[in-house]
Amino acid sequence: MNEAEEIKAVERRIQKAINAGDVNGIVSCYVGDDSLVIFDDVLPLKITGHANWRKTWEQAFELLPGPWRVEEKEIGVTCGADVGFTWSIVQISAANPVGQKIDGTFRLTQGYRKIGGQWLVTHSHLSLPLDPATWSAVFDAR
Amino acid sequence: MNEAEEIKAVERRIQKAINAGDVNGIVSCYVGDDSLVIFDDVLPLKITGHANWRKTWEQAFELLPGPWRVEEKEIGVTCGADVGFTWSIVQISAANPVGQKIDGTFRLTQGYRKIGGQWLVTHSHLSLPLDPATWSAVFDAR
Repeated sequence: MNEAEEIKAVERRIQKAINAGDVNGIVSCYVGDDSLVIFDDVLPLKITGHANWRKTWEQAFELLPGPWRVEEKEIGVTCGADVGFTWSIVQISAANPVGQKIDGTFRLTQGYRKIGGQWLVTHSHLSLPLDPATWSAVFDAR
Repeated sequence: MNEAEEIKAVERRIQKAINAGDVNGIVSCYVGDDSLVIFDDVLPLKITGHANWRKTWEQAFELLPGPWRVEEKEIGVTCGADVGFTWSIVQISAANPVGQKIDGTFRLTQGYRKIGGQWLVTHSHLSLPLDPATWSAVFDAR
């Protein structure tokens, strides 16, 4: 595998772990210290550090215990020898205890560093586009 | 200047150009072909190509002709020899013709490539965090 394929493999590993509800599997793909910076779709403004990222996923699976489905629709990878980034369009759906479903087409950007021979996410940014008339999230943009 | 400082200088150049309403100054910091991919805060889902990015800024300054103010609050830069990325927190304000002001604390991620000795943005992702109860944008998150 070349570097871009290795990075794509990490993205797929994250998707598979989310679909399996596997918090350890998810966070093992992210740098394991306080340098991690996440811009998540919902508040807070910024999540800093691996421990807080793990907490975010634990809470997400508690809040939405129904089946999760993450599907990559499109991806672009840019990388050098030890720094890279991806942009992707991902369809994400999940359900809460009363069966209400969240289903949206999200934009995801992830920044990577190769550390100890392994590509790890050091920064992640997830969002939905906003309707400029209402400043509300649009779930079904194309 | 080292590579990280060169990338920070590009970020400042973009901010300065936005504050001056200078479309050419803004788009000159972005890769000049169809490989450019932008996830903007508002619709559409994805903007592709330099010409469409220029059009986006022309329309933004038409829609919000009042003074723009972009101020960087915090930045992180990661870079290798020819690939890098930044995350930053930026305060952005602008006004429409009837004086209504938009003012928000945004999250910005930009992916860079060094092309012909010059760092250029090849991917950009801007968002506001959402309130999970309403899926509306939050302008004053801290």
